[in-house]
Amino acid sequence: MKMAKLSEATGVPVATIKFYIRAGLLQGGERSLPNQADYGDAHVQRLRLIRGLIEVGGLTVAASQRVIEAIDSDKPLAETFEIAQQTVSDELDQSSLDPAALSRIDELLSGWHYHSTNPGRLAAARVLTAFEAVGQHDERGWFKRYAEAALLAAEADVDELETRHGREAQAETVVIGTVLGDALFAALRRAAQEHVSSLRFSTPLTPENSAETVEDRS
Amino acid sequence: MKMAKLSEATGVPVATIKFYIRAGLLQGGERSLPNQADYGDAHVQRLRLIRGLIEVGGLTVAASQRVIEAIDSDKPLAETFEIAQQTVSDELDQSSLDPAALSRIDELLSGWHYHSTNPGRLAAARVLTAFEAVGQHDERGWFKRYAEAALLAAEADVDELETRHGREAQAETVVIGTVLGDALFAALRRAAQEHVSSLRFSTPLTPENSAETVEDRS
Repeated sequence: MKMAKLSEATGVPVATIKFYIRAGLLQGGERSLPNQADYGDAHVQRLRLIRGLIEVGGLTVAASQRVIEAIDSDKPLAETFEIAQQTVSDELDQSSLDPAALSRIDELLSGWHYHSTNPGRLAAARVLTAFEAVGQHDERGWFKRYAEAALLAAEADVDELETRHGREAQAETVVIGTVLGDALFAALRRAAQEHVSSLRFSTPLTPENSAETVEDRS
Repeated sequence: MKMAKLSEATGVPVATIKFYIRAGLLQGGERSLPNQADYGDAHVQRLRLIRGLIEVGGLTVAASQRVIEAIDSDKPLAETFEIAQQTVSDELDQSSLDPAALSRIDELLSGWHYHSTNPGRLAAARVLTAFEAVGQHDERGWFKRYAEAALLAAEADVDELETRHGREAQAETVVIGTVLGDALFAALRRAAQEHVSSLRFSTPLTPENSAETVEDRS
């Protein structure tokens, strides 16, 4: 198909497609005529992936490039996973973090098996420090319950991964699950917060006189 | 205290403090001499909050301003909560989303009580569409299990909120929990993914010959 058709099939504007090709995120089409290139299904698939990573996952172009290169490589799955985790995490140096916060995270996650360089371990310690710096405290097991919820999500991630066959399909699921999983969970937590607070408070944490509730829509 | 002392107490550089004051995020100090201003504990607290929201929560200056204004206002808690949720969510128009994806989210969350405009509902539908556009599918209840995990986290959020007394303390917890809760969960999920995959795979999803594991450190 021509580029105009590719744009139509994916909803990505032609100018944006050209930008992705120049940036090296998307391979150029096959030259059919000196001034015309031909695009196939692989381009459609790849463009949808780029779009999901950037528009929904919030990755930068450079970050998308890193994870896409990892999918296309023949790196072992473990390494692809590590690249995906690092790409979605701020780069933190363990020496810049409060050792007491790191110890508390390790204590909170005791029994879990992870490397001391796991980007989640470092990021969790940083959040803990920030929570405490603003006078927040954990009276009813807030952090522990988040850890339990995170374990459920990670088990769901790995269960899904086990249903995929072949290195490339698994690498794609690892990358998409890592990037879009954050967005999915954050979204569901916001719906859950409204639900739980509406059950719990006499004045629910929902906008007054606002839109209809989903249950009212029947 | 003078600005240099405020900088020392919070770890925020003087130039950054001046920027926050110019941007309206932080109140200026009380003039003690024509060329000198005096800062108090309230400035220290506020600066730590700004730092947590921006550096750890990843908010922009404008977004931080919105949620800080909401904390300082006398708006009902429900409205502060709504502002916090909107601030951390992309602005999505329901009409731009796939109605089938919205229905599937409502079905997934059936029994939950939330408004049709809940930013989490809309964002979850967008993620679902992006997942499917890249050929991902849900074979072992991936989304349902994420919803269950999100419910646990939201219950922990509301339980903590109930231990706070007074509108300002509750508003601060709502804002911090909304902004930093995303970062905390994402971090813990990364540690959990390494843990679960190390149990599940013969070649664990962890870097080979890499750093020591936390358990090895004893």
